[in-house]
Order: sequence, then structure tokens, then C-alpha cells
Amino acid sequence: MNTRTVGVIGGMGPAATVHFMGRVLALTPAASDQDHLHLIVDNNSGVLDRNAAVAGSGPSPAPVLVAMARGLQRAGAEMLVMPCNTAHAFAGAIVAASDLPFVDLIEAASDEAVSHKASRVGVLAADGCLQAGLYQHAFARRHVAPVLLEPRAQARFMALLYAIKAGDLGPDVRWGMKALAQELVDAGAEALVAGCTEVPLVLGSEDVSVPLTDSLDALARATIAAASRTP
Amino acid sequence: MNTRTVGVIGGMGPAATVHFMGRVLALTPAASDQDHLHLIVDNNSGVLDRNAAVAGSGPSPAPVLVAMARGLQRAGAEMLVMPCNTAHAFAGAIVAASDLPFVDLIEAASDEAVSHKASRVGVLAADGCLQAGLYQHAFARRHVAPVLLEPRAQARFMALLYAIKAGDLGPDVRWGMKALAQELVDAGAEALVAGCTEVPLVLGSEDVSVPLTDSLDALARATIAAASRTP
Repeated sequence: MNTRTVGVIGGMGPAATVHFMGRVLALTPAASDQDHLHLIVDNNSGVLDRNAAVAGSGPSPAPVLVAMARGLQRAGAEMLVMPCNTAHAFAGAIVAASDLPFVDLIEAASDEAVSHKASRVGVLAADGCLQAGLYQHAFARRHVAPVLLEPRAQARFMALLYAIKAGDLGPDVRWGMKALAQELVDAGAEALVAGCTEVPLVLGSEDVSVPLTDSLDALARATIAAASRTP
Repeated sequence: MNTRTVGVIGGMGPAATVHFMGRVLALTPAASDQDHLHLIVDNNSGVLDRNAAVAGSGPSPAPVLVAMARGLQRAGAEMLVMPCNTAHAFAGAIVAASDLPFVDLIEAASDEAVSHKASRVGVLAADGCLQAGLYQHAFARRHVAPVLLEPRAQARFMALLYAIKAGDLGPDVRWGMKALAQELVDAGAEALVAGCTEVPLVLGSEDVSVPLTDSLDALARATIAAASRTP
């Protein structure tokens, strides 16, 4: 095969990684097993809490993420991706410690969000992702203003996130997420980024009135493009 | 964590491996990311055709499967599973080449099928799986008679299988699979095994009148049990 083997630094959360793999499959033109990309996936549920680490209330997951990147390379990976927005606060450590190309989720999602010509883009993202300024920084370089939830709404968002991680994909969680997306639109967002891998599990484009960028789908497309490029 | 890291020899097909990972997640009692098992998955789409290999019309995938097992061990796996029925024709080579415990899908599915007290169990499985006698052998040791499709029906089954691998999960494929399951019941099967990982993608217990063992679910349960046992 003329494609690169993709190493997936996963487990944040485990369901989001499985969803990402499914999206890579669905977005790959393939007629047989052999037409699909070769993915090696470390779906490591033991990665320390990213939000606590960014907030300074918990130890950094960077050493574990670097060890996973090295393990994936030893297992045969030729490029790396990480289907977790907040963990990209530690992407620099991975890039510094590995000589493999790293396809950045925040860059992929931001590129897709600005393609909708919006000047104000709403972001549904976890506390750690926002505190680390990942989307704010990527948007600034693209001359786009971020629209964020107000503190109490952001707290509701985090509660929904942990409910999804615990396996609750029920109607209450779906309605709650839809209401938060609407708050961003009401605050002036002309496009939205589902900037946390759990969000697309309960929110689709049919639930919002403005273009919605699914950060996992953006990464899946960028992954397929990068893996298909001749090394 | 007090569980074993699970190495998954996957990619046969890639969608079945993703489905297996989702079932392990769904069947694991977990309240947070950190409660899930640590899975390292080689979703290798480049494994050679198992059916051709068993039929003698293609090269053996055993060397690739053994290399995957070793790569997973290097990446940190402490036990191995392989979510593909037919590939178990080469399970012996993996067990012989690795010092990790191997949880056998055929054994897990057969144990679950005989738990329904049936004396005749129908098997929906690929040509290679049947030619290798994997279920026939496992059933014989459990004093259960296998019920198989007649040659023309088996050819229809193989056509459905390759349609599923090409991404077709539509109503025609679903009805076709349901009809084949009914043929086995009409031929005297008192229980059924979905003995190919693509089958559960289009056939559920609601589609059949006798107990249906999903070989992927049986492996997911056996995997969770084995990983949770103190090493």
C-alpha cells in the first residue's frame, strides 16, 4: 500500500477514539478491507485528566502521551494523530519527543471552521482546552474572533461532558448540548466548532442553525489526506 | 489500574474491529474514562485475504498476524485477542510465536452458543472459517451438531459479506442475511452463531426466532473477564 501507517494516541475518551476510527473508515473511499488505512491505536484509558492538568490541579499527562507516541512508532506508525482537543495543550511535548509527522486536530478544525467565511466562531470545548487557549490562538492567526460560553453555561457544558464519558447519550444530554450551541449562536456566532471529541456524539449539524465543524471529522479528513500523501 | 492491557490483532475487517472496540466499551461498567480497559489496537487493513489462504488459493496471513502480535507486545499489550473468526485458522501460529495469553473468539462464541441448551446450532460463517472447521471442531468437543448453509446459500452469504466490507449496510443486505438465518432455523438449528464479525453489523437477535450468539460480543465479554482477572 502506498499510504502511511497512522498511529492514534487515543483513549481521551475511549469512546471518542472509537468514533474517530469509525469516521476515518466512513470517509475513506474503499471497496475492500485492503483499501482502508492501516491504523495502530493506543486506546489508553489511563491518561491522566487533561482538564485538571491544564488547571494546575493535577499532574501533566505529557509523559504518558510521549510514551504512547514512542510505543506507536515502535509498533510501526509513520505519522501521529490524537483525537482529543484538550490534550493538544501537550501536543508540543509530543512533537518535540517524536520524529514522526503530527497532524494537529486544532489546526484541522480551525481551517474547516474559517472555510465558512464567519468572522465570529463559537467554540464548545472543555475547560482545559479553553484555559490553554488552543482555539483562541488558532483563531487569532486566522483573524477570527472566538465566541465562548459564559461561566455558568460552561459549567453545564462540563457536566454534560462527564455524563457522555460515563455513557449517557440520552435525550436530556442531547437537548442540553443543543441549548448550549444555541446560546453561542444567540451571542453572535456565525459558525460553531464542536471542539471536544464527546460533543459530536450528541450534537449534529441538524441540531444547529449555523455551520457546525466537527473537530473529529476535520481530523479524520486531515488524517486521510496526510496518510495518502506519498511519504 | 489492576487490569491487563489488551492487544487487538485487528483490521479483518477494519469496521468489525471498530465495532468490537465499541462493544468492549459498552459492556464495561465504567463511570469515567479511567474505568475503561486499555486497548492497543493494530487495525491493519493490509492482512491478506483469510478465505483465499484457507482455500489454498492465496498466501498465508500468518506471518503478518504474528508480526502484529509481536508489535502489540512491544507496544505494551499483556494479552491478545483477534476480532475475526476466519483468522482463527491461524491462531495456533500466533499462540506459538507469542508468550502472551490469547483469548480465543471461537471458544468464547461456542461456549455462549451451547449455554442455550441447543443440540443443533446453526453457523453463519465465511468459507475459510467453515473450510478450516473452526466451529465444527469446537462444537464437536461440546457435543453439539453444526447446521451449515447449503452451497448456493453459502455463496449468497459470501456475496453479502463482501458487500458489508465495502460499506453496504442497507436494507437489501439486512434482508438477505435475515433470510439466510431463517434457512438455518428451517434446517433444524435451535440456536445460531453469527460466526463472522461482519454479520452482527446487519443482523440482531430481533431478526431471528432462536437465540443468536454474536461472536464479537462473546469475545468482548471474554476479553473484559480475562483483562480484569489479576495477572
